[in-house]
Amino acid sequence: MNYCNNCGNSLKYRIPPGDDRPRFACDYCGAIHYQNPVMVVGCIPEFEDKILLCRRSIEPCADKWTLPAGYLENGETVSAGAAREAYEEAYANVEILKPYALYNICYVNQVYLMFRARLLDRKFKPGNESKEVRLFAEQKIPWDQIAFTVIEETLTQYFKDRKDGLFPFYIGDILLKKKFETA
Amino acid sequence: MNYCNNCGNSLKYRIPPGDDRPRFACDYCGAIHYQNPVMVVGCIPEFEDKILLCRRSIEPCADKWTLPAGYLENGETVSAGAAREAYEEAYANVEILKPYALYNICYVNQVYLMFRARLLDRKFKPGNESKEVRLFAEQKIPWDQIAFTVIEETLTQYFKDRKDGLFPFYIGDILLKKKFETA
Repeated sequence: MNYCNNCGNSLKYRIPPGDDRPRFACDYCGAIHYQNPVMVVGCIPEFEDKILLCRRSIEPCADKWTLPAGYLENGETVSAGAAREAYEEAYANVEILKPYALYNICYVNQVYLMFRARLLDRKFKPGNESKEVRLFAEQKIPWDQIAFTVIEETLTQYFKDRKDGLFPFYIGDILLKKKFETA
Repeated sequence: MNYCNNCGNSLKYRIPPGDDRPRFACDYCGAIHYQNPVMVVGCIPEFEDKILLCRRSIEPCADKWTLPAGYLENGETVSAGAAREAYEEAYANVEILKPYALYNICYVNQVYLMFRARLLDRKFKPGNESKEVRLFAEQKIPWDQIAFTVIEETLTQYFKDRKDGLFPFYIGDILLKKKFETA
């Protein structure tokens, strides 16, 4: 962040009066440009005893499998965003059920909110960001080909809870893996 | 948003290739400036049968009572943010308990996440944004002096659930009040 998007002048990174941390601030027009975490909303689409996964066609993690999820847009509710992402990535018609898990991913300033969802029909097919969309039974989940740690965590927690038949709302943190772990 | 904060050139509001909605985009450096909802995190600090409210010293809603809450900062978890806000607004030492309610406030692009919390001691006092901080029993809540609809909703739901002794995670929408209601 170099220039003020209000007046176009150069920004300084400094602690504004009354604040306790540095912000990008414009000395010319006075605007302060706050940066805050972004919400990612997604769902676990359930169909009979299976769930829907998407194989990514784009980076990062192209070719790997994920749950439909993406950035929450201005003007939409978290549930509407989760349903939209399921449609965009998999043309999946879902009914969003309860919120299931929230994950803090502090090192990239993201908060994931994942819902359980009912997949309403089999009319799914790959959306723009997917090359394949498929229903998986638990035993067939491609655990070594899951795109993101947060998705792996969501699925692991989900199948654990499904055994108990209880889905309490869960909060977790995704920590940056050490180098030797990501190798 | 007028100028690119990357290169300082003028922005256009247009639909980028492959996207489905207009964004502020820079034709000079190619940057696209997404705008997304912001998370507000807060808590209901409980002390015996009372809860802690803060009387605001700043606009909007100066002089009205609120629960401690504020914007989630980069690099912090939702729970850490809720605890930080309790300390900033009321010097309240809290232990964040479970997430209690999420509210979509689409017309201002905010998502509120409210937690239940245990107030650990009576060493609270007004922070910078508060002129008074006080414990309230349910019968003494100043219902006609609550700062924001989302706080009123949170408190209403909370006292209802407290009667049942159950606090399921709740999702709600705060809708823009019609003019005659806000009068």
